[in-house]
Amino acid sequence: MADNRARSRAQIPDPTLLRLCRYLRILERTDDGTISSAEIAEAAGVNAAQVRKDLSFFGEFGQPGVGYHPKDLLASLKLMMGLDEELEVVVVGAGALGSALINYPGFENRGFRVVAVFDNNPAKVGHRLRGYEVMAFDRLGEIIADHDVSLAIISVPRVSAQEVAVALIEAGIKGILNFAPVNLKVPEGVVVRSVDLTLQLETLAYYLRD
Amino acid sequence: MADNRARSRAQIPDPTLLRLCRYLRILERTDDGTISSAEIAEAAGVNAAQVRKDLSFFGEFGQPGVGYHPKDLLASLKLMMGLDEELEVVVVGAGALGSALINYPGFENRGFRVVAVFDNNPAKVGHRLRGYEVMAFDRLGEIIADHDVSLAIISVPRVSAQEVAVALIEAGIKGILNFAPVNLKVPEGVVVRSVDLTLQLETLAYYLRD
Repeated sequence: MADNRARSRAQIPDPTLLRLCRYLRILERTDDGTISSAEIAEAAGVNAAQVRKDLSFFGEFGQPGVGYHPKDLLASLKLMMGLDEELEVVVVGAGALGSALINYPGFENRGFRVVAVFDNNPAKVGHRLRGYEVMAFDRLGEIIADHDVSLAIISVPRVSAQEVAVALIEAGIKGILNFAPVNLKVPEGVVVRSVDLTLQLETLAYYLRD
Repeated sequence: MADNRARSRAQIPDPTLLRLCRYLRILERTDDGTISSAEIAEAAGVNAAQVRKDLSFFGEFGQPGVGYHPKDLLASLKLMMGLDEELEVVVVGAGALGSALINYPGFENRGFRVVAVFDNNPAKVGHRLRGYEVMAFDRLGEIIADHDVSLAIISVPRVSAQEVAVALIEAGIKGILNFAPVNLKVPEGVVVRSVDLTLQLETLAYYLRD
């Protein structure tokens, strides 16, 4: 089982996975009828051959010359990507960014539900934030076990991020979306995706320099 | 001039650029003395050969067996990446995410200064948000010209993002950090980086599926 999962992970390269998620979004906005790989490609900003190649990772879809049935393709892709049911997530770090993420409409719209919010700031613990009671870190284990959550978002300052990651993984978290600007060290079997907002601005600065 | 810039853009691949920004962060946290490529590599989660190769895009740094002087290397990299002076940025979209980005400490700490915040919601225009007066879109041109701003952050809903991008580019913006889940179409000479937060969670779901 673990081996199978490891193998399927290796099969789909990360850039493909990111594009597939973009195709999902396009398919969701497509009404009935059919959609061609060229149309998906146009909306995603890639070429049609790329779309066909990316979709082929999951098998055969659509008919040559006819295109894809958007709803069918969407359902198949969601199932194969583990997105066919609601996924629960905890947010650790209730600062400005964490607060924004808690009810970020994109999460809820796409089947992610925040079940709990944690922060260790005594000024925040016990208070309500956008409908959630902010809980201290010492309740991480209990809440994650109760809800059987696998996904966490880390939006604490850099200096606390590794410690928070360790506590989350101990509590059973398998996937972390990390907003702290630090390279988290995690054991095998745990997946981290880091989003460093400042770094994105910095690379833009490079392209704009005189 | 344009040709030179186009050539240097092509020289540094995007993954290299992202890693170089991570090295900057590590160098900033390094006190006096020297730092080896192995130490940078360890902190960045890559290997030492990769660090040396990435740095070589900008020329020769450090001495074999001695390592790098962190402050010197930092200053050189910042200069070459266009990060040696403060960069001004406007934020368009004053929802929860936009508000969080306005005083995201990572931006200010790394030399990015938000100079204005825009939103077209009549309930927001004219009101103060985290120290900024929220302005309507019709003032984009004036403010961007006055401040000679080149960078913008788009944090409006998906349906408005392309229209906002067009207005920003007309006003002189050359680099856009886009948080709307849409593939923005921009003319040559304008660079967009998109951060799709939901998409990141979705790829985690793929790795976690049974």
